[in-house]
Amino acid sequence: MGEVQTLTSLTDAMAEAAAEVELLLNQILAGPKSGQESLFKAMRYASLNGGKRLRPFLTLESARLFGAPDKYSLRAGAAVELIHCYSLIHDDLPAMDDDDLRRGRPSCHIEFDEATAILAGDALQAAAFETLADPKTHPDAEVRTALIKALSIASGGKGMVGGQMIDLAAEHSNADMKMITRIQRLKTGALITFSCEAGAIIGGASKEERQALLDYAHDLGLAFQIADDLLDVLGTLEDTGKATQKDEAAGKATFVSLLGVSKAQQRAELLIENAIERLDIFGDKAAHLRSIANFVVKRRA
Amino acid sequence: MGEVQTLTSLTDAMAEAAAEVELLLNQILAGPKSGQESLFKAMRYASLNGGKRLRPFLTLESARLFGAPDKYSLRAGAAVELIHCYSLIHDDLPAMDDDDLRRGRPSCHIEFDEATAILAGDALQAAAFETLADPKTHPDAEVRTALIKALSIASGGKGMVGGQMIDLAAEHSNADMKMITRIQRLKTGALITFSCEAGAIIGGASKEERQALLDYAHDLGLAFQIADDLLDVLGTLEDTGKATQKDEAAGKATFVSLLGVSKAQQRAELLIENAIERLDIFGDKAAHLRSIANFVVKRRA
Repeated sequence: MGEVQTLTSLTDAMAEAAAEVELLLNQILAGPKSGQESLFKAMRYASLNGGKRLRPFLTLESARLFGAPDKYSLRAGAAVELIHCYSLIHDDLPAMDDDDLRRGRPSCHIEFDEATAILAGDALQAAAFETLADPKTHPDAEVRTALIKALSIASGGKGMVGGQMIDLAAEHSNADMKMITRIQRLKTGALITFSCEAGAIIGGASKEERQALLDYAHDLGLAFQIADDLLDVLGTLEDTGKATQKDEAAGKATFVSLLGVSKAQQRAELLIENAIERLDIFGDKAAHLRSIANFVVKRRA
Repeated sequence: MGEVQTLTSLTDAMAEAAAEVELLLNQILAGPKSGQESLFKAMRYASLNGGKRLRPFLTLESARLFGAPDKYSLRAGAAVELIHCYSLIHDDLPAMDDDDLRRGRPSCHIEFDEATAILAGDALQAAAFETLADPKTHPDAEVRTALIKALSIASGGKGMVGGQMIDLAAEHSNADMKMITRIQRLKTGALITFSCEAGAIIGGASKEERQALLDYAHDLGLAFQIADDLLDVLGTLEDTGKATQKDEAAGKATFVSLLGVSKAQQRAELLIENAIERLDIFGDKAAHLRSIANFVVKRRA
């Protein structure tokens, strides 16, 4: 396939997956009859109609490498997305990154209030584990607990939440490349890695196949973060749906502030080349995972 | 056994269980080598050396009804306690109940800061599910996923978090008995009920036995809340380790404000009588569960 064709195929596949994820999330977040309406409204506000659903797509495509049914991987992907959305709500809070905008709309605590936003995040986290524990996610309970264990580690104090903690502590400090890499490996990398790992778990990957996916996800996650930092510098509010040039204003060290735009771009491209190489053992089946890697560094939002 | 003897036996059993839970939590919350020290410090601060560990004790004693090994139920109990501790951290936040004191010490966000407190709560929730997903909690993955499903529902948007949401929304409103009962059934009741349900799941209870435990927990949970409201009115800071008379100051309707002290006490006692009756089918094995019910309405902190 030529580059244009590949991109069309990827865009279509991503849109299709995003629609499926949306349906699932809509179902998972169906509100109760009375009392907690505002809570469920906030949970739905922060989770529906948003984002490219990159993480669920990674789970879906990783599971497809092993011929695992989409209906399983989509639910695992929806669980990752619930964790991702809860983390965005909490990260935006005044005590944290203090962001008023998210995906071009008021952040959850602006649209509702702080208490509702904290609780909506808490409830989304619980919903993620509830989704994975359900037999609909996989008939084998061993697979379900493996998913839950991996997601709780990836999203917890030694994973995503730990990364956010170090990131907050590192503000206004002279973080170096090693520190920034460590932060991002946890803060955004852990969940991206889990997204691929989930596909390997559902698909019953061999040790070698699982490792190849983990290595791919690892490089992809870092490249993704560098692309995000570049967008913060080069993008506009219109492109990204959130305030840009925030990192510099906050005196925050990033890959771009440490390396400069051009070297950061080079590094992202090198990581993507590495990531794509890891997929060799999967042959043609990994076409979408290869395309998504290229997409990640070329995206504008 | 006479009442004094029973109480001694209960106190001993609770202290023993609390020590075991402490050990487990200490192990579960062992910090990482570098970077997130303050996060783990906050998680440990909010979870260790605190409380009577009522919920884990309920899990332990419920599982013992079926002869299930303590090593399983203690881990499930530790998971409940992690959820309980995360909810206390978040409930104390300025945007929520705004409490500066907890168990006689500065609340987590006072001792650390708000961002750390939010993240510590988030990470404790993840740690609870990580604990349940681990094969050490039960060799049968079906049992582990059943525990995870039940805990995620009990603690999520249609359970504990939902209760806190309705409670916040009901402040300064004219909540009636029906509303207060609904709030408490979710806010504190759901987790107390899960504590007993977990014992039934681990022990492989029959449908009838499970229902008896759920009914017991249901009445116990409400009685516990009424006792808590009474403590808020009648207790002192010294007894409770937290600020008292807060409900009235906040214009918050409680069982006590609606019923008055004497009728609230009567209702709590009636609920406890009911709760104890539910345990008839378990005979002598339920002695501690009966004692704990009496203890709950007579406690001073």
